[in-house]
Amino acid sequence: MEEKVVYIAGMGLIGASLALGIRRQHPDYKILGYNRSDQSRQIALERGIVDEATADFKAFAPLADVIILAVPIKQTIDFIKVLAQLDLKENVIITDAGSTKLKIIQAAEKYLPADKVQFVGSHPMAGSHKTGAIAANVHLFENAYYIFSPTRLTREETIPRLKDLLLGLKARFIEVEAAEHDLVTSQISHFPHILASALMEQAGDYANGHELTNHFAAGGFRDMTRIAESEPGMWTSILLSNSDAVLERLTDFKNRLDAVAELIGQKDEEAIWHFFDAGRRKRKEMEIHKRAGVDSFYDLFVDVPDEEDVILQILELLRGTSLVNVHINEENRDDINGILQISFKSESDLLHAQTLISQHTDYHVYLD
Amino acid sequence: MEEKVVYIAGMGLIGASLALGIRRQHPDYKILGYNRSDQSRQIALERGIVDEATADFKAFAPLADVIILAVPIKQTIDFIKVLAQLDLKENVIITDAGSTKLKIIQAAEKYLPADKVQFVGSHPMAGSHKTGAIAANVHLFENAYYIFSPTRLTREETIPRLKDLLLGLKARFIEVEAAEHDLVTSQISHFPHILASALMEQAGDYANGHELTNHFAAGGFRDMTRIAESEPGMWTSILLSNSDAVLERLTDFKNRLDAVAELIGQKDEEAIWHFFDAGRRKRKEMEIHKRAGVDSFYDLFVDVPDEEDVILQILELLRGTSLVNVHINEENRDDINGILQISFKSESDLLHAQTLISQHTDYHVYLD
Repeated sequence: MEEKVVYIAGMGLIGASLALGIRRQHPDYKILGYNRSDQSRQIALERGIVDEATADFKAFAPLADVIILAVPIKQTIDFIKVLAQLDLKENVIITDAGSTKLKIIQAAEKYLPADKVQFVGSHPMAGSHKTGAIAANVHLFENAYYIFSPTRLTREETIPRLKDLLLGLKARFIEVEAAEHDLVTSQISHFPHILASALMEQAGDYANGHELTNHFAAGGFRDMTRIAESEPGMWTSILLSNSDAVLERLTDFKNRLDAVAELIGQKDEEAIWHFFDAGRRKRKEMEIHKRAGVDSFYDLFVDVPDEEDVILQILELLRGTSLVNVHINEENRDDINGILQISFKSESDLLHAQTLISQHTDYHVYLD
Repeated sequence: MEEKVVYIAGMGLIGASLALGIRRQHPDYKILGYNRSDQSRQIALERGIVDEATADFKAFAPLADVIILAVPIKQTIDFIKVLAQLDLKENVIITDAGSTKLKIIQAAEKYLPADKVQFVGSHPMAGSHKTGAIAANVHLFENAYYIFSPTRLTREETIPRLKDLLLGLKARFIEVEAAEHDLVTSQISHFPHILASALMEQAGDYANGHELTNHFAAGGFRDMTRIAESEPGMWTSILLSNSDAVLERLTDFKNRLDAVAELIGQKDEEAIWHFFDAGRRKRKEMEIHKRAGVDSFYDLFVDVPDEEDVILQILELLRGTSLVNVHINEENRDDINGILQISFKSESDLLHAQTLISQHTDYHVYLD
């Protein structure tokens, strides 16, 4: 391993958490940080997340063996252009952390000198409702997909070297072509954000003539519109950097709405039933059933009776374990008992908890 | 109060929970139950949810002062036709529990004799992932909206008498015209079910050519598609009984998708930002922020630090309290601390818990 100096631009949740993950595996590496605003830069310094921090992006770039751009998509592209003008270390590895990959990779291939720098696209697929360096969390990427998208500036050594650097994240590394990445995320993330916000817009307008709309919305509507509260700037930028894929999904979706409308118009009971049933069956197959939440954690499930203090009883057994969350599951299941879902930060805590609960209770305990 | 015999058709979750709520306030009333299948009928009898049970709907109808039809919409309409042919008690009150109101009320007004029976539409707006008499819960409707939709067969005394009968539910009674009820629920419930299932269908088809779709879906997608796992038969029946309103919302939604597509096509960054921002602001205004889940409970919020055993510490304070659920909130908020949401079955438990946590910790505790 040759990397000694890592430069992370952006001390937000992602950049600062990447720094912690790198340090966990490589405590001897020097980590330099850039952040435009004072607050997260100060926190990153005070907490030792980085060794040194700057508000001048250019300042540390020439010192780095690896540069990670953990800033918004547009700024990532701007920084790529800036880096192209600097005198960087020979064979420096540059990567990013953006939610779309094609536009960023196109910029890298266009502006960066292939004979001098290596570049691979990155998308660590984790997030949190918390933001900023103050929310930095060494566990953020554990068990999460961490996508590498190769480019013409990716050499044979690039991804292996980055994987070694990022080993401490304990993420699930996977290589995905940039185009495929952007298509898949348009389906499962970018276009659904439009759906959620459009539904919210529609309900808001409807409430003007039908005031009870503001009051009768319950669990289903709440869950469907949760992501409509995401940060508008980030999603505007994601949409604009993946517009073709998103527009294709949007058109496809309108066709599906037309098809359902036709079934309803024809009062085709059987076909409507199959439409709902197919969605139900498909969802049960998907990996989402195994994931804890926005973040990726290790989940334990316990079938518990509807009795007083049952959650307390379990948590007492787990005292001192680093559990992240506890919840009686509200998914639509046919079970009579509630399913208590407990999320842990590490697999060893998970297995330890499973043993404890099995030994001290009669409840059925399982991992998925 | 004159009601002495209440006949509930349908010993599912709703019918059986209504029986428990009626008994809580009126332990001296006789409650008779109908259920086609043996299992829920037996459970309702064994647990004393009803005094007597039958598999022959007609059998108990002539004995009743109040008849509550807690069966699927189509069956509700069929039973209204059956009741029209029976020799019922003078001035019997008939009501239902269906998710749409117009079709049921039209049937009641068409078939039932206005000079002999009273009819008002009902929609108790609560549910659970649990089903059947075995899941019956006297707390199911607490704090939930319970809608009465008046008809030509509703007399001045009808709703007051029903409110007295149902006082034990501790629901929020509200009168809403059937047409308005069906419009509002098309927006916040019926049409969103189409969106969720269509998104699931779309992702399922996309996964055939893009296998990673099955794996990369995370929290946002999971929440948006949760209701796609609902029981297909129930939603088919709801859609078909409210098709005009649902189709109107569907067409309106397609226009909104067109508008967003145009903004993306024009790369109108500012307008897209405003689209997302408006959704975010609107959602924060809605009552959903105060509701716990599919069910309606009393919620307490505690700002807690990300420390070991913090949930355990709080639950120990609350030992013996009838809490329903506990969860660190994953909503997109800007807070640094986590928000621990604790749901209680009663307001008194909620207030007691608030006092306990305020006295024994430094954490900020609040109700909404």
